[in-house]
Amino acid sequence: MIKLPGLIDPHVHVREPGQTHKEDWDTATQSALAGGITTILAMPNTKPPIFDSATLDIALRAAKQNARCDYGQFIGAGPHNADLLPALANRAVGLKMYLDSTFGELRLDDMTLWTPHFEKFPKNFPLVLHAESRTMAAGILFAAIYDRPVHIAHISLREEVLLIKAAKEKGIKVTCEVCPHHLFMTKDSPLPQEEGARANGRKEVRPRLATKEDVDALWQNLAVIDCFATDHAPHTLTEKDSDNPPPGFPGLETALPLLLTAVSESRLTIPDIIEKMFTNPKKIFNLPEQPETYVEVDENAAYEIKASEQFTRCGWTPFEGWKVKGKIRKVVLRGKTAFEDGKIFAEAGYGRNIRG
Amino acid sequence: MIKLPGLIDPHVHVREPGQTHKEDWDTATQSALAGGITTILAMPNTKPPIFDSATLDIALRAAKQNARCDYGQFIGAGPHNADLLPALANRAVGLKMYLDSTFGELRLDDMTLWTPHFEKFPKNFPLVLHAESRTMAAGILFAAIYDRPVHIAHISLREEVLLIKAAKEKGIKVTCEVCPHHLFMTKDSPLPQEEGARANGRKEVRPRLATKEDVDALWQNLAVIDCFATDHAPHTLTEKDSDNPPPGFPGLETALPLLLTAVSESRLTIPDIIEKMFTNPKKIFNLPEQPETYVEVDENAAYEIKASEQFTRCGWTPFEGWKVKGKIRKVVLRGKTAFEDGKIFAEAGYGRNIRG
Repeated sequence: MIKLPGLIDPHVHVREPGQTHKEDWDTATQSALAGGITTILAMPNTKPPIFDSATLDIALRAAKQNARCDYGQFIGAGPHNADLLPALANRAVGLKMYLDSTFGELRLDDMTLWTPHFEKFPKNFPLVLHAESRTMAAGILFAAIYDRPVHIAHISLREEVLLIKAAKEKGIKVTCEVCPHHLFMTKDSPLPQEEGARANGRKEVRPRLATKEDVDALWQNLAVIDCFATDHAPHTLTEKDSDNPPPGFPGLETALPLLLTAVSESRLTIPDIIEKMFTNPKKIFNLPEQPETYVEVDENAAYEIKASEQFTRCGWTPFEGWKVKGKIRKVVLRGKTAFEDGKIFAEAGYGRNIRG
Repeated sequence: MIKLPGLIDPHVHVREPGQTHKEDWDTATQSALAGGITTILAMPNTKPPIFDSATLDIALRAAKQNARCDYGQFIGAGPHNADLLPALANRAVGLKMYLDSTFGELRLDDMTLWTPHFEKFPKNFPLVLHAESRTMAAGILFAAIYDRPVHIAHISLREEVLLIKAAKEKGIKVTCEVCPHHLFMTKDSPLPQEEGARANGRKEVRPRLATKEDVDALWQNLAVIDCFATDHAPHTLTEKDSDNPPPGFPGLETALPLLLTAVSESRLTIPDIIEKMFTNPKKIFNLPEQPETYVEVDENAAYEIKASEQFTRCGWTPFEGWKVKGKIRKVVLRGKTAFEDGKIFAEAGYGRNIRG
């Protein structure tokens, strides 16, 4: 039995408000606890997005009522809200900026729209960037110019990890996270697909699954990677197998088993997991202590990943059938057994806002 | 009569080798002299591109034989030539990196391909980047990380000039140039078109003509702009009016008259022109003195721009019919009258390599 601290997932799409047929605060936090995660940081691109006082209230009210693990809520940077966000900063975990691939109220096409957020959002709260490839480089330049830290979400490419390495060596304040699916899958990994469904709908994820060279570069540069994050992005199987499959994978319940399996294969160490799923995210996002909180895993328990045994509402996993080694036995959160042997014991509303 | 120094155009497509039906060293340098320009810096994306010792020889041999004004030749960064370019640096004016929109041997898609050039090209020679918008920001980050100056070619957007301003204020070593067509035209400017030709073929240029807001931002931030450059990119009218019009405008003979017209309208000053077409490019590209060299312009002479009176081989101008005020009367290059009252007097071969 290995004892880990309560883990932190800095990148979770809870889907509430707006898309609770995929997930909500109740199911997302059950899924987190079952995955050994006692704090989730929720992304703001819900429907509506969390991007002003009223929408932040909606999210925090739902979380307060239904969350079973601790949580923080990101607010989203939009083209018109830079002036009003600083007043909301201390109720949120930080600011999320969608600099690539997002439409609607959080779209920030023109770099001049980035500037007021970099200038105005309080410097003691993190800026998290969805920014791929050259856009990521642009975001890091903004960090250098405005002399404030940025955290790059879900890097997946060799060029990204190598540029972050060079920027860190230069002293630029940049941190980053990698998702398990970008560590354990390539664009050529087969994913199960329903017969008659649109080809590769289940494989759709952003950033896309990358090449073997990209995956190898991530593993070779683990020291550059500050956090593991799931980018838990649940969609139903009906949606994934439709003509217009939305991008995203669930990931809360599979991250730790996959990483423990890598430990069993000597590709990773337990201290790596603690550093990247506890120490670093706690520091980067300035999270409070969780007293009497820990996770017990049986590092020798081998099993097969099955969506049917998961708590996420979406009902599938891209890792279906994968054989893993390392099972989460028990999660204690603030003195209370929150999960044990496949059952959730924390009640809806037990979770606390990390900025509460 | 105003006397100016011999002007420098740091961005010229001579089209030789490979496309001499559009232009060659003889006609390009006649066009330059008629425009008051006594030094042109030639871009390397010819056919073949200038990207190794053999191709550099081809370009320099043609230039030596036919250039009528002084010149420098850029070499082009490719995915495989970073190791061999340092040995060629002192025969070239600098390194041109195509980080956007170019195909073939000079394509540098992946940012990991930029790194060896930033690391290896001698630091006392300039790096010029074709890099728009976010790619430009990425290029500036590389300048910051590798602590060497970059010069951004033909900026056209508000977001670009404002980001360069911020980067300069931060102390990052970046300079930039703007083309007259991006100062005097917007995407809505009408361009004459032959009947039956593909709509807007003549308007094709990269970077594209921008919005009025972009143009206004360039004028409002003239202090940020280090150089005026023509990006003289001649194509024949047959090509421009074809189904697949290549992007590019000729510009050598129209730049100075257009800028002098702006002076007559009090939008610009003569010292601005001297700074951005002589002092700054001379410094950025480390160009030698041209003794006994000057340009005489009649600041009061009004005339109409006509392609039929130009020396460029391409046979058209996007400014056809524009009324300008300020005419180039005489150009003296190293003691010799090279151009006077519409006639070229410098002979083919009179021009010298600025790295000679």
